[in-house]
Parts: sequence; C-alpha cells; structure tokens
Amino acid sequence: MTTNKSIEVVFSPALIQFHDVKNKIVVVIDILRATSSICVAFQTGVKKILPVATPEECKIYKEFDFVIAAERNAMKVENFDLGNSPFEFENPLLAGKSIAFTTTNGTKAIKLAKENGAAKIVIASFLNIDFLCNWLLNQNESVVLLCSGWKDKFNIEDSLFAGAVVLQLEKHFIVDCDSAIAAKSLYSQHETNLEEIIRQSSHAKRFKLLHLQTDDVSFCLQKNTTPLLPILEDEYLVRM
Amino acid sequence: MTTNKSIEVVFSPALIQFHDVKNKIVVVIDILRATSSICVAFQTGVKKILPVATPEECKIYKEFDFVIAAERNAMKVENFDLGNSPFEFENPLLAGKSIAFTTTNGTKAIKLAKENGAAKIVIASFLNIDFLCNWLLNQNESVVLLCSGWKDKFNIEDSLFAGAVVLQLEKHFIVDCDSAIAAKSLYSQHETNLEEIIRQSSHAKRFKLLHLQTDDVSFCLQKNTTPLLPILEDEYLVRM
Repeated sequence: MTTNKSIEVVFSPALIQFHDVKNKIVVVIDILRATSSICVAFQTGVKKILPVATPEECKIYKEFDFVIAAERNAMKVENFDLGNSPFEFENPLLAGKSIAFTTTNGTKAIKLAKENGAAKIVIASFLNIDFLCNWLLNQNESVVLLCSGWKDKFNIEDSLFAGAVVLQLEKHFIVDCDSAIAAKSLYSQHETNLEEIIRQSSHAKRFKLLHLQTDDVSFCLQKNTTPLLPILEDEYLVRM
Repeated sequence: MTTNKSIEVVFSPALIQFHDVKNKIVVVIDILRATSSICVAFQTGVKKILPVATPEECKIYKEFDFVIAAERNAMKVENFDLGNSPFEFENPLLAGKSIAFTTTNGTKAIKLAKENGAAKIVIASFLNIDFLCNWLLNQNESVVLLCSGWKDKFNIEDSLFAGAVVLQLEKHFIVDCDSAIAAKSLYSQHETNLEEIIRQSSHAKRFKLLHLQTDDVSFCLQKNTTPLLPILEDEYLVRM
C-alpha cells in the first residue's frame, strides 16, 4: 500500500474531541434520516441547505424566503413546512429553493465538524455511497466518518454505513482505528440483510412507537439512488 | 420474557453521561489490562485494591504499606512496584497485601461509575466472565457494561467482551440499546478467533511498538481462570 491517507470512524459526536479532524475530510452520517433527506433534496433540485441549531433559529429564515424544515425526537416540529422524512424532500416544488434545516442529531454533527477544523465537510447516506467513495479516493486528505448517533449515543444504522464505506475504501487507506475495524465487521456480518438489524435498533423502534412511516427505513437503505455529493461551503450545503 | 431488568453497553467513559446508570450495576471492563490484572490479583490473594486517579496520588500510599502499581500509555511508571501486566499480579508475595493502583483507562472508569451513582460497581474480564454472568443473573438491578476504551476512544477488546456478556445474558434481560446489539454482533462474528481481531486493534499494535510482552494479550483472553468477582466497597475493591 502506497497511501498515507487514513480513514477513521467516530461513533458519536461526543467522541469527536478525541479524534484529530483538522485538515481532514469529515463525512457526516445520519442515515435515519437527515443525511438521507439532504441527498434526496439535492436530487430534487434544491439550491442550498442551511443547517441550523434550533427550531427557533430555523423559523427566522421563513422571512427570507427559505423553506423551513425541523425535526425533534423523530417528529416534524409543528408549524414548519417540512419535517425529516426523505419522502417530503422529493416534492418537485422544492426545486430551486433554499431550505433551513434543523434535526435532533444530523445538523448538530455538521456544526461540530466545522468547529473542530475539518478541511471539507460532506454529507453521506446509502443513497450516495458509491459517488462518495469514488470522490474520497480522488482526494488528498485523510477521512473521518462521523456518525451522528442518537442524542450522542452510539447508533446501529450510522455505524453500519460507516462500516460499508471502510469496506469499500480499506485497500486505499490506512485503517488504524478500532472503531473502523468494528464498523467494518458489523457491516460485513449484516450486509445481506441490513433491514433486519436496523429494525432491532432503538431508532426503528422509536419510529414504530410514534407510528411514523416505517417505509422511511427501507427508503434510506437503498443504494445509489442519488448520485451526487452535498458539501458544506461557508454556511451552506450545496451540491458539488 | 418476564424480566424487567435491562442490559446496556457504554463504549467509552465519555459516553456514560448519556446513559442512566443510577441504581444500576456498572460492570467496568478494561481487558488490556487493568480489569484482567485486578482479577488475577484477587486470585493471588491480594486483600484490597485502591483505584486512584494519578501516579502522584498513588505514590503517597507507599508510606502506608501499600504496594503501588502504576501504568501510563501501556508502560509501567518508573519507581513503582508494579505496572499493569497480569503476570506481575501473580506473584505470591502479594497475598494479603493492599495495592494502590492507577492506569490510563481502567481506574478512571471505576471512578466515573461511582460519580454517576451506580448502585454496585464490579470488575470484569474474560478471566471471570462466567462467575460475573451468574452473579448478574441473581441480582435485581439492571446492568450497564462500561468499556474503559483507550483515552476515551472506542476500543475493540472491551467491546468484544461486552458483546460476550450480552450474548450470555440476553435471554434474561431487556436488550434495548444499539451498543449492546452491535457488541453482541461483533463478538458473535469473532468468538472463535478473538485473538486475530484483537491483534489488529490499536492497543495490540501499541504493545508491539513498545516491545511489551505480547503474551499479555493471550493471557487476558483466557476464560474463567479466576472464578471470583471484585466489587467496590466504599473506596476499595475487594473480593466479593
């Protein structure tokens, strides 16, 4: 192996402080559902997305002609245009629009990556996994896969996705990180039936309790339906 | 299932704040090597072990007739009686003695479990896994398996052990925690060849770089060689 690029996995935003992300590419992962929905939004033709910390802050952007989207505890926040289901972001009326977006976990992870000095911040999901991996192969920087988790706890679905990326890239990167080894092992074991283990996860159970569209889970496990890469430019996510 | 006891896994001391450990049994895990060495010490006949935060604090106890043991960054600290290799704790001259002990990760996890209000704090390793599991089955409290990690990062060997415990106990506990599901999956996949994956881990590589006894890894993966359970009573670990 002639590379000197490394790939690491961070299982929770609360652990990012123990990894050095400076001058690296941080890949933000929130499979259920923020980063999946962001990929869908750009596929629909959304112009830009502003990740914001709170619903209160998000609401302000309504005045400036943004579509406002907010989710807390897996539910759409009342009086917002959109929640966090990927199906909502397929609406063709969103083409050309700007969206202000806040979610329980995903938008927080994006902000944290920025504060910790990442060189580039990109958005990943199963929906754009191959596009992401090809792009990462052609960059010069090391890679940190940041799982958004659930309220700073480890979660299954983000970790599985991180494992899928490690599996695709390991021949071209230095893998010297226990989380990356564990994530790859987890994904390898469940690759042929991701939905089964994800349905055991706390997040899927949460969806069920809330009588949310459980179709969201199947939707977010599709591969390569949105061949594009959202990247943070200044404050905005845009399609690269 | 008629139980209402749950079992959770915490992959790093930095994540304990997001789990409720109050009134639960916290099982502290530092396979390489603090909790393995503690099990060995009690098997040797050590009377009690005082976990302390720093080598400076540890050194004070020399005056009070303690044996002093200190490890930092996988190395024995200079001028201490013992480091953190389980072989050192097999010395029969330790029988009846009290030890003051500080390590990079393990003793910190013990202190954190106490600060977070655990009902009982016990010490686990592969060396006492069946004894631990049988005891946990007979308690009334829910269980939190706390991995010491490496400097607050996730590590493979503690997570594998947590998975082994979940696998033994899952029929008798509620498993509603993504970390527990992932740990179990990881252990199931590597159960027949733990040493292989652990030798890939950052900690094993660290040992190799430092030319430490790599026998420590094989030693710490033995099962049920010390059928006993260390428990924290006030400030001291004692044999239950």
